[in-house]
Amino acid sequence: MREIYLDNNATTMIDPEVFNLMQPFLQQTYGNPNSLHRFGQATHKALNEALNKLYDGLGASELDDIIVTSCATESINWVMKGIYFDEILNKEKNEIITSSVEHPAVLASLNFLEKKLGVKVTYLPVNSEGTCNVEDLKDAISDKTALVNIMWANNETGMIFPIKECASIAHEHNALFHTDATQAVGKIRVNFKEVGVDYASFSAHKFHGPKGVGGLYIRQGLKLTSLLHGGEHMGGRRSGTLNVAGIVGMAEALRLANLMLNYENSHIRKLRDKLEDEILKIDDVSVIGNRDNRVPNTILASIKGVEGEAMLWDLNKNGIAASTGSACASEALESNPIMEAIGAAPDLAHTALRLSLSRFNTEDEIDFAAEQIKKAANRLREISSTYAYSPKEM
Amino acid sequence: MREIYLDNNATTMIDPEVFNLMQPFLQQTYGNPNSLHRFGQATHKALNEALNKLYDGLGASELDDIIVTSCATESINWVMKGIYFDEILNKEKNEIITSSVEHPAVLASLNFLEKKLGVKVTYLPVNSEGTCNVEDLKDAISDKTALVNIMWANNETGMIFPIKECASIAHEHNALFHTDATQAVGKIRVNFKEVGVDYASFSAHKFHGPKGVGGLYIRQGLKLTSLLHGGEHMGGRRSGTLNVAGIVGMAEALRLANLMLNYENSHIRKLRDKLEDEILKIDDVSVIGNRDNRVPNTILASIKGVEGEAMLWDLNKNGIAASTGSACASEALESNPIMEAIGAAPDLAHTALRLSLSRFNTEDEIDFAAEQIKKAANRLREISSTYAYSPKEM
Ligand SMILES: Cc1ncc(COP(=O)(O)O)c(C=O)c1O
Ligand SMILES: Cc1ncc(COP(=O)(O)O)c(C=O)c1O
Repeated sequence: MREIYLDNNATTMIDPEVFNLMQPFLQQTYGNPNSLHRFGQATHKALNEALNKLYDGLGASELDDIIVTSCATESINWVMKGIYFDEILNKEKNEIITSSVEHPAVLASLNFLEKKLGVKVTYLPVNSEGTCNVEDLKDAISDKTALVNIMWANNETGMIFPIKECASIAHEHNALFHTDATQAVGKIRVNFKEVGVDYASFSAHKFHGPKGVGGLYIRQGLKLTSLLHGGEHMGGRRSGTLNVAGIVGMAEALRLANLMLNYENSHIRKLRDKLEDEILKIDDVSVIGNRDNRVPNTILASIKGVEGEAMLWDLNKNGIAASTGSACASEALESNPIMEAIGAAPDLAHTALRLSLSRFNTEDEIDFAAEQIKKAANRLREISSTYAYSPKEM
Repeated sequence: MREIYLDNNATTMIDPEVFNLMQPFLQQTYGNPNSLHRFGQATHKALNEALNKLYDGLGASELDDIIVTSCATESINWVMKGIYFDEILNKEKNEIITSSVEHPAVLASLNFLEKKLGVKVTYLPVNSEGTCNVEDLKDAISDKTALVNIMWANNETGMIFPIKECASIAHEHNALFHTDATQAVGKIRVNFKEVGVDYASFSAHKFHGPKGVGGLYIRQGLKLTSLLHGGEHMGGRRSGTLNVAGIVGMAEALRLANLMLNYENSHIRKLRDKLEDEILKIDDVSVIGNRDNRVPNTILASIKGVEGEAMLWDLNKNGIAASTGSACASEALESNPIMEAIGAAPDLAHTALRLSLSRFNTEDEIDFAAEQIKKAANRLREISSTYAYSPKEM
């Protein structure tokens, strides 16, 4: 059976060119880059080249730090807990402001700080597009605010948040600013220096790099108590023997993704729009957020009367991989948290279908997927006890 | 030039069979194991098989947890900081007891708890063999002790610590016990259940698995505040999209290493002993610790009058990779901390040479290395300003 992968916001295929560059470091070139001998030196050189690609690809200056971690989740936990130790514990400041639709890595870290350590966490509401309003941040921020945390692009809707404005509001109030850029890197142009963030998290496997490697951008001169204390790796900021193959892979994946940004913004966006247009032809369907303000690859649709899980199974039977929202929640079969946050009725919150494309999708695949989604919607509505079915000519 | 790798305590080559098993998960089988569709299911199945291998290979019961992390450093930081939040913050207990020759991941984590959070850390002295005495632990422990931390095998000397006794002393005093098993796993038989530890850390790249993946054993029913908060991965204990290829690789590497334990204990030990005997023929040379009480692959020698770095460079020119101690310290050119801990004179602490073998070394390589070490010692002593050189017939 043909297999069509439309779940690229959960994870992506490693680009074959990326794999080719990684392969030597999984086989013959295995030295520890910290070792003095030639086995170490061979990997040390590759590591430096990879770091240079990361600096270039993310718009970091030489004086900034880009620290390789094991995933965005680690980077995010690091910032949240580091800020607690540096800026809140035994200090005047005691508050973190966040959007309310962040990834579980953010929300669970903040929940820990709130429940266990007494940090005040303020959750900004989202508008009907699923993003937050700059005005709400202005109202909430005070001289007690240690950190403002707003994601760059949402994993479920693909909606882009006004992080440049948010960062500058944070700075006006002497607060630090972190963005979770996991769903932005590789999909839109990302220049951390230019948007003026203090910290930014990302994960290689979201842009056709390997799983198990990510990074944290730290603006020039900023401190951040380590999450992984230990030896001298990464300038003493993050310990653990370096995953050389992973770092080499992440860096090349970033370079390729950036090279392909025009393609992402033209071809992939066109495929996404086509798929979205086809889905919108189904009765009682809505898609969250204005597509011009979204990363080019994502659709979060709500198909009234069609349980998201049921849709997934139906598509899966036909070889199509999609999602009802973040992969983290999949085991729990919960309702889509974004749909809840924007105030959708409970029955709608269970109808989310997320389709996320990549540069490896073809028009043919998109046509086939559109067809299957329509068929599944009809079929599932027919057997739905809650949806009054009146088939429409398509 | 022929290349001989004798730095396997720093990191190892991925076993080619391990790489073969990993490869599909770096190429075609890339789904997120948490996803419901068949891309996810394919990886989910592999993940379960890998976890089973880990449980089998480490002597864990089904009710214990083995949580995959990004490295031993992460596992160690997790335990140290988790114990702080669970057992010390706002509680009666306030002390952690540790050996004084732990890996920097332990020492730096504890330094953080001590300096920043006011935890009392007690460092047990080491004897001339570089291990600690059970009696010293008995004297130090009290009802204020939250955690006892003793490594299973030391990374520099290979010396094995009496962790079974230490664990039971800890438990008698109602304290928890963690062992850093990073240098034990794959080198000697490891059964976490049997030795009765509560937590144990390990890292795949030390036993011919990939870099960037490790684990933490957590005994049945024990809690441990997460270091990486987030979604539902790993039963909610450690978040972040799973590094499937890495996990598959670690599990197979463990399986193979355990299969080879007899070989490790006979053939590799014989090669190690041969190399050690040859080195001991050089005048004014000592090796730390009784070889019967060491993992089979390690030698930490001190060659009087021969600066360790100089020896490394000389060997490196001849294609031999060795170390002066932990790779983490290599950038800093410091003296060997174990030699300092056992009270060696400062001039001796700079003469450490660590040789660590693997199952990929041959007798031929060992003969060549012995020859080169002798030659280098002679040559370097000849130009030494501190060593009174009297060449010996060899
Ligand atoms: C005893 C010991 N513990 C912990 C570590 C840390 O392992 P990793 O660098 O894989 O986190 C090492 C290796 O450097 C080690 O030898
Ligand atoms: C927006 C966002 N942040 C963070 C993460 C966490 O990434 P990882 O699982 O690689 O740590 C994800 C992906 O799951 C994400 O989509």
